[in-house]
Amino acid sequence: MNADVTRQIAELRETVARLHAELTRNNLVAWTSGNVSARVPGQDLMVIKPSGVSYDDLTAATMVVCDLDGVLIEGDFAPSSDTAAHAYVYRAMPEVGGVVHTHSSYATAWAACGESIPCHLTAQADEFGGEIPVGPFALIGGDDIGKGIVATLAGHRSPAVLMRNHGVFTIGRNARAAVKAAVMCEDVARTAYLARTLGRPVPMAQADIDSLYDRYQNVYGQQPVAPAGS
Amino acid sequence: MNADVTRQIAELRETVARLHAELTRNNLVAWTSGNVSARVPGQDLMVIKPSGVSYDDLTAATMVVCDLDGVLIEGDFAPSSDTAAHAYVYRAMPEVGGVVHTHSSYATAWAACGESIPCHLTAQADEFGGEIPVGPFALIGGDDIGKGIVATLAGHRSPAVLMRNHGVFTIGRNARAAVKAAVMCEDVARTAYLARTLGRPVPMAQADIDSLYDRYQNVYGQQPVAPAGS
Amino acid sequence: MNADVTRQIAELRETVARLHAELTRNNLVAWTSGNVSARVPGQDLMVIKPSGVSYDDLTAATMVVCDLDGVLIEGDFAPSSDTAAHAYVYRAMPEVGGVVHTHSSYATAWAACGESIPCHLTAQADEFGGEIPVGPFALIGGDDIGKGIVATLAGHRSPAVLMRNHGVFTIGRNARAAVKAAVMCEDVARTAYLARTLGRPVPMAQADIDSLYDRYQNVYGQQPVAPAGS
Amino acid sequence: MNADVTRQIAELRETVARLHAELTRNNLVAWTSGNVSARVPGQDLMVIKPSGVSYDDLTAATMVVCDLDGVLIEGDFAPSSDTAAHAYVYRAMPEVGGVVHTHSSYATAWAACGESIPCHLTAQADEFGGEIPVGPFALIGGDDIGKGIVATLAGHRSPAVLMRNHGVFTIGRNARAAVKAAVMCEDVARTAYLARTLGRPVPMAQADIDSLYDRYQNVYGQQPVAPAGS
Repeated sequence: MNADVTRQIAELRETVARLHAELTRNNLVAWTSGNVSARVPGQDLMVIKPSGVSYDDLTAATMVVCDLDGVLIEGDFAPSSDTAAHAYVYRAMPEVGGVVHTHSSYATAWAACGESIPCHLTAQADEFGGEIPVGPFALIGGDDIGKGIVATLAGHRSPAVLMRNHGVFTIGRNARAAVKAAVMCEDVARTAYLARTLGRPVPMAQADIDSLYDRYQNVYGQQPVAPAGS
Repeated sequence: MNADVTRQIAELRETVARLHAELTRNNLVAWTSGNVSARVPGQDLMVIKPSGVSYDDLTAATMVVCDLDGVLIEGDFAPSSDTAAHAYVYRAMPEVGGVVHTHSSYATAWAACGESIPCHLTAQADEFGGEIPVGPFALIGGDDIGKGIVATLAGHRSPAVLMRNHGVFTIGRNARAAVKAAVMCEDVARTAYLARTLGRPVPMAQADIDSLYDRYQNVYGQQPVAPAGS
Repeated sequence: MNADVTRQIAELRETVARLHAELTRNNLVAWTSGNVSARVPGQDLMVIKPSGVSYDDLTAATMVVCDLDGVLIEGDFAPSSDTAAHAYVYRAMPEVGGVVHTHSSYATAWAACGESIPCHLTAQADEFGGEIPVGPFALIGGDDIGKGIVATLAGHRSPAVLMRNHGVFTIGRNARAAVKAAVMCEDVARTAYLARTLGRPVPMAQADIDSLYDRYQNVYGQQPVAPAGS
Repeated sequence: MNADVTRQIAELRETVARLHAELTRNNLVAWTSGNVSARVPGQDLMVIKPSGVSYDDLTAATMVVCDLDGVLIEGDFAPSSDTAAHAYVYRAMPEVGGVVHTHSSYATAWAACGESIPCHLTAQADEFGGEIPVGPFALIGGDDIGKGIVATLAGHRSPAVLMRNHGVFTIGRNARAAVKAAVMCEDVARTAYLARTLGRPVPMAQADIDSLYDRYQNVYGQQPVAPAGS
C-alpha cells in the first residue's frame, strides 16, 4: 500500500472504533451484538470491528481490515462474523461508504413480526423517505444476508432494512451516516411501536412525505445541513 | 449593539448551550433532533442551536444569534432548521422568553395518533393545567409550524403542544422554563401511555385540576416555589 | 439544641442529600419531582429536601430542618412542597424514620388507574408482603395527603402506597429503607405492568406469599440480612 | 489450601466482583437483587457475592468463598441469600463454572406469566438454541430452587431458565459466560415482549434454529469466536 492508503486506513480505524461508542450510548446493542464498517475509498478494502471484542476494548489498533470478499488483510483478530454481509453490500452498492448492523430492540421487534415500519412521523419522512422496509429471512454463513439487504435497499429511499427475525442493517455514504441511520431507525421504530400500541396513528399524505424527503435530500445535496428537528 | 446587549447575549449563549445537556440527560432527543432557544430580552433577537452540530460539541461559542425573522445575525454556523418556528412564536407571543423543540418518544407517539394527553395526574394539572393539546399537521419551510403552535397555545394553559405526526414544542418565560416543560411533557406522556395501556385511568374532577393549577400559578406568582412533588 | 442533636442533624443532612442521588440513578424522578426526608431520632424534627432545588445542587448544606408541623426551623430554602405530607406521617407513625415521595412512571401509571399492584413476584412478597395498595385521591395544601397515606399503610404490610392520580409514598425505619422501598416499588410496578400487558400473570398462593414475607421479616428481625435475590 | 488454589481464588474474587458491574450497566438489577458466582476449578468451592452489599461497594475483598453445601469458608460477610441455589447447581452440573441470578424486568415478566420465550430471533437461536424455558415455582430456603433450575436446564440447550413468579438463573462454563447469558436473556425477552405486543411474530423453522445453533456451537468448539451479530 502507498502512504496515502496507509494514512486513510489509520484514520478509518480511529473513526470506526469511535463510532461504536454511539451504538452503546444510544442503547442499540447488548454485549457484542452490533458492528460498524467503513469502505476504504477507492480501494477494495474495508475497516470493520473484530469479532467478540467488547466495546470497552475497541481501539483503532483492534480494528481489522478486510478485502471485499471478507478476507482478513490486516489485524490481530478475526473480523466480525457479519463481515460477509458488509462485504456483499460494498461489492454491490458502490455508492455506499459505511454499513452498520444492530439488533436494536424496537426495530428488531418490527423485524420479528415481518412488518415494515409505516411512516407516521416527519422525522421518518426526512431520513427514510417513507416506510422502513422488511428484508427476507436469511441464514448467516454465505451471501444470503448481503443479497437480502441489497435486494431490499437497491432503489429504495430508506437507508435501513429490517432483516426478518434478525435485526437492522443500515447504509450511508460513510460510516457516520450509516450510524446516524441506525440511531434514527431505532428512534422511529420506538415511537411507531408506542403509537401503534397507544391508539390509531394518523396516516401522512404521500405528497407530504415526498415533499419532506425531497426538501431534505435537495437541501442536503447543496450544502451540509441537518434535517428538520436539528 | 451596546455593551449591555453584548453581555446579555454572551450569557444567553452560555445558558442555551448548557440547557441542551438537559435534553440528552432526560432522553428527549436522538442524534441532533432537538433544540432550545432564548429571546434576548428587549431585543428582536434570539439565541438558538446551530444546525446539525452534535450535542457533545455545543458550546457558548457555537450558538448562533438570529433576528425574529430567522435571519442569521451572529455565528459561524447555519441556525437550526426549526429557526422559523421559534422566530414565529417570539413574534406572536411577546410573553415567551424561551422555546424548545423535541421528538421525545412518548409525547411524539401521542402526536402521531393526533390525540391530546388527557389529564389523569396531579403533576400534569400543576404544570399544564389540564390536557396537553394537539396542534395541526404542518410542513417545515415557512410559517406553518409557528402558526400551528401559536394557534394552539394562545390562551391555553399548557406550555406544550403536540404537533401532529411531528413532535413537541414548549414555551416558557425563559429557556429554562421551556426546557422544564419539555421534560415534564415527556414524563407525563410516558405515564399516560402506561396508564392507558395498563387499564382504565381514573378521570380527575375539573374542579380539582383547576384548584391544583390555580394554587401552583398563584403561589408561583408570589415567590419562586416549586410545584407539588418537588 | 445540644451537641448530640446538632451532630445528628449534620449527619442526617449528609445522608438525606446523598440518598437523593438514588432517586435519579434509579430513574424515579423528573426535574425536581421527588423528595426524601428523615426523622431526627427522639426529636420532633425532620430533615427534608428544599423546594425546587435541582438534584445536582443538593448538598448537606442545602437540606432544611422542619418541625413535625412542617414549620421551617433551620435552612436557607423553603422546604419541599410535600413537607406537610411527610410531617403528618411522622406525627401519626412513630415507628417511621424515613419517608420518600416520587412520581416514578410505572408505579404512577398503576396509581392513575386506581389499581393496587397484585403480587405475582417473590421479590414483591419479600419486600411488600403482598399487593401494593392504592390510597385515596387527595389535594395538596393540608393534611389530606398525609391522612390518606397513614389510613392506607397503618396495619398494612406494604411500606409503599400508590396515591390515586398522583404518585408513590414509601416509609421505612430510616430514610435508606424508605428509598429502598421506592426503588423496589418501581421495579415491581414495571415488571407487573409488563406481565399484565404480555399475558396472564400466574397468581401466587397466599400461603407462599406469607411464607416469603415471614421469612424475610423474621430473619430480618434477628440480624441484618438481605431478601431473596441479593 | 495450597498456593495455586489461593491464587485462583484471589483471581476469581476479582473477576466476580468486576462482573457485577455488567449487571448494573445492563440494567438487570435493582438495589441489591442480583448475584454472580464462580466455581473454583477442581475444588468443591465457589466465590459468590456477599448478602445485602450494594454494587458500589463490591470489591475482590468483599466477595465470599463457600463450599458446595453453601457453608461460608472465607469472607467477612454472610453469603448471598441465593447461595443454596448456586451451590445445588454446581453439585449437580459439573460442567457449569458460573451461575448468575437476576430479576431483570422483561425476563421476569415472562416468568410471572409462566410462559417460556418462543424463538423468533436469530440471536436467540445462536445463544439459547430455541425457546428459553420456564422452571417451576419454588420457595427459597432449601434445595427447591436449585432442583428446579437443574431439572429444567439439564439436557436443554438454553443456558437460561425463567423461574416462575421469581426471575432468571443462567449458567455458563465460567462466570463471564453466565453473565453474557443473563444479558442476552433480558435482551431477547425485551424484543420478544415488544414483538408480541406489537403484532404477530413470524415463527422460525426448526431447521433454521438448529442450523444457527449448531453453527455457533461447532464453530465455538473449534476456536474462540463470537456469535452472529458481533
